[in-house]
Amino acid sequence: MSIYQQLEQHYGTLGKLSAANSLLFWDRNVVMKPGSAAAHGEVAAAMAALHAEKATDPRIEGWLGEAEAEKPGLDTWQAANLAEMKRLYRHATAVPTELKVRRARLSAEASQAWQKARAGNDFGSFAPYMRQMVELVREFAGHKAAALGLKPYDALMDEHDPGVRSELVDGVFGLLAQRLPVLLEQVLDKQAGWNLLPLGAGHSDEAQRELCEFIMRKTGYHFDHGRLDQTLHPFALGGVPGDQRITTRFKADDLRFGLMATIHETGHSFYEFNLPRQYSFQPVGAARGAGLHESQSLMLEMCACRSAEFVRFLAPELARRFGAADPAYAHDNVLKHYHKIRRNLIRIEADQIVYPLHVILRYEIELALLDGSLPADELPEFWNMRIKQVIGVTPPDAGQGCLQDVHWSLGMFGYFPSYTMGAAIAAQLFETATAADPAILAGLSVGDFGPYYAWVKPNVHEKASSLTFQAIIEQASGAPLSAEPLLRHLTQRYG
Amino acid sequence: MSIYQQLEQHYGTLGKLSAANSLLFWDRNVVMKPGSAAAHGEVAAAMAALHAEKATDPRIEGWLGEAEAEKPGLDTWQAANLAEMKRLYRHATAVPTELKVRRARLSAEASQAWQKARAGNDFGSFAPYMRQMVELVREFAGHKAAALGLKPYDALMDEHDPGVRSELVDGVFGLLAQRLPVLLEQVLDKQAGWNLLPLGAGHSDEAQRELCEFIMRKTGYHFDHGRLDQTLHPFALGGVPGDQRITTRFKADDLRFGLMATIHETGHSFYEFNLPRQYSFQPVGAARGAGLHESQSLMLEMCACRSAEFVRFLAPELARRFGAADPAYAHDNVLKHYHKIRRNLIRIEADQIVYPLHVILRYEIELALLDGSLPADELPEFWNMRIKQVIGVTPPDAGQGCLQDVHWSLGMFGYFPSYTMGAAIAAQLFETATAADPAILAGLSVGDFGPYYAWVKPNVHEKASSLTFQAIIEQASGAPLSAEPLLRHLTQRYG
Repeated sequence: MSIYQQLEQHYGTLGKLSAANSLLFWDRNVVMKPGSAAAHGEVAAAMAALHAEKATDPRIEGWLGEAEAEKPGLDTWQAANLAEMKRLYRHATAVPTELKVRRARLSAEASQAWQKARAGNDFGSFAPYMRQMVELVREFAGHKAAALGLKPYDALMDEHDPGVRSELVDGVFGLLAQRLPVLLEQVLDKQAGWNLLPLGAGHSDEAQRELCEFIMRKTGYHFDHGRLDQTLHPFALGGVPGDQRITTRFKADDLRFGLMATIHETGHSFYEFNLPRQYSFQPVGAARGAGLHESQSLMLEMCACRSAEFVRFLAPELARRFGAADPAYAHDNVLKHYHKIRRNLIRIEADQIVYPLHVILRYEIELALLDGSLPADELPEFWNMRIKQVIGVTPPDAGQGCLQDVHWSLGMFGYFPSYTMGAAIAAQLFETATAADPAILAGLSVGDFGPYYAWVKPNVHEKASSLTFQAIIEQASGAPLSAEPLLRHLTQRYG
Repeated sequence: MSIYQQLEQHYGTLGKLSAANSLLFWDRNVVMKPGSAAAHGEVAAAMAALHAEKATDPRIEGWLGEAEAEKPGLDTWQAANLAEMKRLYRHATAVPTELKVRRARLSAEASQAWQKARAGNDFGSFAPYMRQMVELVREFAGHKAAALGLKPYDALMDEHDPGVRSELVDGVFGLLAQRLPVLLEQVLDKQAGWNLLPLGAGHSDEAQRELCEFIMRKTGYHFDHGRLDQTLHPFALGGVPGDQRITTRFKADDLRFGLMATIHETGHSFYEFNLPRQYSFQPVGAARGAGLHESQSLMLEMCACRSAEFVRFLAPELARRFGAADPAYAHDNVLKHYHKIRRNLIRIEADQIVYPLHVILRYEIELALLDGSLPADELPEFWNMRIKQVIGVTPPDAGQGCLQDVHWSLGMFGYFPSYTMGAAIAAQLFETATAADPAILAGLSVGDFGPYYAWVKPNVHEKASSLTFQAIIEQASGAPLSAEPLLRHLTQRYG
């Protein structure tokens, strides 16, 4: 066995351990009853420790060194695989175990404190944890930065979004920060006179599930490889080759919510499903990071399925199922539901224009917290000031303000950007795809996703991690990532 | 950390790995769609290899040796835990890896060949695999015997049924083999004139599920810790402390089948649920082997829930749900359905009298195959001759004869006895329990399982593996295991 093959075997085991963890996560969230949570938590912790043990196996260092000599004999996928292994090994070994343990302990305490603080709208009780967490993340990022030769924030982002750097984020976010608030005001003016008819009420889970499964079938979803379950927080399984299962959530009085959550997760699931099977479980065979993953859910949900074209297919289907005579299911009314913009204080409920503003604010805050220019104690004041500036309203309490997200209490810094980077990528890819093949939009208007996936599968999904994040976007769209396509898309749709 | 604590930590990790494997097994059988089977199979194989790696960790040998010096300071549960660790380590290291690999490969090939052979009723095509498997199992058993200081067949049984030896099995099975065929003929004569009214037909899964969940609630099943799903082969989750989930199978025209499968698995699940939580994931905290496990399903299903007392509660409930005016749901007719004896050629469909005869035949055949007195080629002739002698009918083909079970194709020798050992244990424990507390039978007649579990929980479940198999039975029933209680039970119920 060559050294490269030795590494492939080791990382194959790691990939299978990750797949097992992914399935156990599914079990905890979809199958498990709450009474057995304690034992499942212990199993998850033991599995995470085993994964860490294998990921930091001291033999890897030697293998990686020796594999250099074999490089001339590797093909491009194997070479990319080797590079990914190095990156993963550097991340896995960058931070001393003692600090990882401290982080795990503080995360557990801080997220409990956060839950109480959010429920009581009491930032003060969370502030000490936030201060400690910022200190700890700074230390953590320092180790990662040193090991990876990156700036601290970039080292944090690189963990889940390989190759994404703050320079790139700054460019994209800078333009959005400048133009979106203006667009927001224009659109709100334009929509001021809209009179939306509600899309029914009291829709049963069963009727909504039938609708969702119908639409999933239209997208080409493989029900012999997946299923639709219900959870509080919808998600898609990842890391289990060929398993396309997803979850969604239904609200009886909001048909739109469950359908769009389903389509969003369906988008994620296709990325996973179309990854090349010959590299299953290998680093090079994995999806290329959180931003690109989010682009595949948003491209399907936002770009494709909120388009006027798709609503031409969807609206009559809603009418047929929920009320043929109800004018609420007319194309124009359904489309308005999908295009309605609001000054939403809550990120996860926000629309295509307000959502990026939320993310940009969090990015700004994370940088300021980590470089010390924003003391943790001043977070609520700063939050409220900036949210007023960019969205135009002030949160009535901390729960609807700076305490709304769980991320910081878990020490997750550097993750927020990927949501809006994903939106920018989605717009750029969708613009290219629809220009390259007019059959895509024509297909959407009759519920045919064939042309859509015929473009996105070879151009994005099948690349897996064989190329860098930037190379995938450039090869697919002919240009480096920029905010312009997203701004064009939003202006065209809403302006 | 003491050496004992070091061992506890290591075996705790192993226990959690086993729990993860158990949950992944659940996923494959309950959740997964068939299209993703290949990836799940690879994950399972990697997890099994990881478990084997940890179970044969060379440090264990040294720890076990050094722990001897700490023995005086251990309490009885800790001492029993240490003894179990030794047993597990001996089993894990007894067989050379090369032979394990050969066994895995042959099992995969042979079980495929078996599937084809069974479908085509063609023993000839399976015979070469059977010959190889017998050779391989003999070699395998030889290694286990040497490592454990046991007879080869005992070494095989000890893997899943610690402490069960062929001497004990011979005693129990010998008496059953002598008396059951006689009883069978008597009972068939007695039942010859029975005229059973069918228990309805076309029962929906939903109606059957409601009935099953109603009965499960009556047993005290913890729905906040478990759930009832549907699979082709019903089973209960094991090894995940506090998680009581089970599966069942419904047949539209056989109400009895789904209900009894559900009760059977509920019995298994209570054993798991009542294991002492302070020893979760430790060897001493596990159920005490396959035979005792089966006793807990059979005691609930056969002894308790096929009793005239329980049917007094069940029959009116069936009538209320499925046809109040239908005389089929009268107590006497329902009871006869549960007590009907048939010359059943298929083990898994057989009743309380014929099932043990099936198991005893397989035990006899396994011993003869392994000591070479029965050549694999002669299996069909031998099978047909003996089944005619003990059950009184001849299989029309090999699929309903010696090819009916998957076990041998997988190399599972030494497992069959536990089914009937379980039946003997169940009868002995139920006889003791009902004699000790008349409230048990009285409770069953009104659907109250409180007294039943008040006896079985401390006397069996909470002992976990702190005592030997024999000690649990003797302490609970005041006598060593024998076939007499089962024969009394069968004679009283059917004779």
